[in-house]
Amino acid sequence: MINIMKFVSFGENLADLVRPLLINAYQMGSGYEKKEDGSVVTSVDRDVEKLIRSQINKTFPNHGILGEEFENERLGSDFIWVVDPIDGTRAFATGIPNFGCLISLCFEGKPILGIIEVPLAGLRAVGVIGHPTLVNGRKVNTKECIDLKDAVLSTCHPGALRERRNVLDTLREKTSWRFYDGGCVSYVSLVRGFLDICIDGNLDPYDFCALVPVVEGAGGKITDWSGKALDINSGSRIVASGTPLLHDSVLYHLSS
Amino acid sequence: MINIMKFVSFGENLADLVRPLLINAYQMGSGYEKKEDGSVVTSVDRDVEKLIRSQINKTFPNHGILGEEFENERLGSDFIWVVDPIDGTRAFATGIPNFGCLISLCFEGKPILGIIEVPLAGLRAVGVIGHPTLVNGRKVNTKECIDLKDAVLSTCHPGALRERRNVLDTLREKTSWRFYDGGCVSYVSLVRGFLDICIDGNLDPYDFCALVPVVEGAGGKITDWSGKALDINSGSRIVASGTPLLHDSVLYHLSS
Repeated sequence: MINIMKFVSFGENLADLVRPLLINAYQMGSGYEKKEDGSVVTSVDRDVEKLIRSQINKTFPNHGILGEEFENERLGSDFIWVVDPIDGTRAFATGIPNFGCLISLCFEGKPILGIIEVPLAGLRAVGVIGHPTLVNGRKVNTKECIDLKDAVLSTCHPGALRERRNVLDTLREKTSWRFYDGGCVSYVSLVRGFLDICIDGNLDPYDFCALVPVVEGAGGKITDWSGKALDINSGSRIVASGTPLLHDSVLYHLSS
Repeated sequence: MINIMKFVSFGENLADLVRPLLINAYQMGSGYEKKEDGSVVTSVDRDVEKLIRSQINKTFPNHGILGEEFENERLGSDFIWVVDPIDGTRAFATGIPNFGCLISLCFEGKPILGIIEVPLAGLRAVGVIGHPTLVNGRKVNTKECIDLKDAVLSTCHPGALRERRNVLDTLREKTSWRFYDGGCVSYVSLVRGFLDICIDGNLDPYDFCALVPVVEGAGGKITDWSGKALDINSGSRIVASGTPLLHDSVLYHLSS
């Protein structure tokens, strides 16, 4: 039997360490570089990930680490920490507050703990497999929306899903209204019951592992675009909905 | 000679009053309604605007008021306060932190003072005609970018400019990268030198009057899509750039 609660407090301590660093760096302003793949990185991404890795290596030296900015460590371990120091680096680098730090623990490839720390908004979502999701310590639930026409949709910037523009255009027509480029903050909004569907693409495991226990523990559904459960090896397109019925409806459109 | 500084301190006092209300309402979560025109409103929009109006009426009973949620008052006055209690209500209502309060004073129709208060990000931009723009009390300047290919573009959600999609597609191809749905926060980023172009549509005067002195006082340029200076009677599409040269280049594409 895994004592998951010790991992939860460890993860929350990491988020406590990271929060003031991100707020300070955001307010001071931070230059950025473009990586070879066209994505953006700042020195803060690297500093925060280094800090998190050093804490994990000190406390759980047998656990693996998969992060955005440095080499993977011990991926053969049963337990792997999956870390995105700044999810939404483009937002962070342009001074837009939609960014967060994602910390997740996977056991045998499946995310069992997820933390979405959104420092500027003062929000932290904690999801633990088999437990209700908490935002700032309070239990949250997704909204009871089952019909596309009532749903509020959040999606990444249109460029990232350009080759599926027709699908997104269809969903745009069918949903109530849309928000773009919300990043990981949208998933916190989903579990707070403020929006109904999140669709993203071009993702890596460190972008979505933390979201899985958070969404599931609030009554939502989160899968890849074909409806398969997400794990540390899943592909780049994910979708989450507040209710399973709405999720079926969204999957139908995504697959067409 | 107008003593503009007394209006600046009055406007900053308004922003001080509004900031904790917006942070608290955001963190508690707030329901929303759809208005007849399809836009979104919350009870917080109305409460904040009522508060601001009562302060203006008490302090400057001869000044006019143009706000989003209630009837215009005394629009024949030389001085008109132009107020958007929550710019980015869709963001606010979906729990995304890209929203702010916009407070502006126009003299003979021209914006002479603008305040962009972004409560969750802890940022306040203050622009006063003939003075350098301050963010959190410090002088700021736009970035020296003159070439589209180096520029970072911020724009509203694609639905709002659907009939000009081809123009936005062109700009997408020509710019370095893009951010969507940043709302008024993007203009604070522009004057902090973190992005280079902001393009928005479907706007009313209360959405853009406050931006004018802020952008101009930081060395940027802000006009409508045909290049005309903005005033309280301008139409719904605006564009701002960090440098006049870049602005010319953007206007060329917007007019084609």
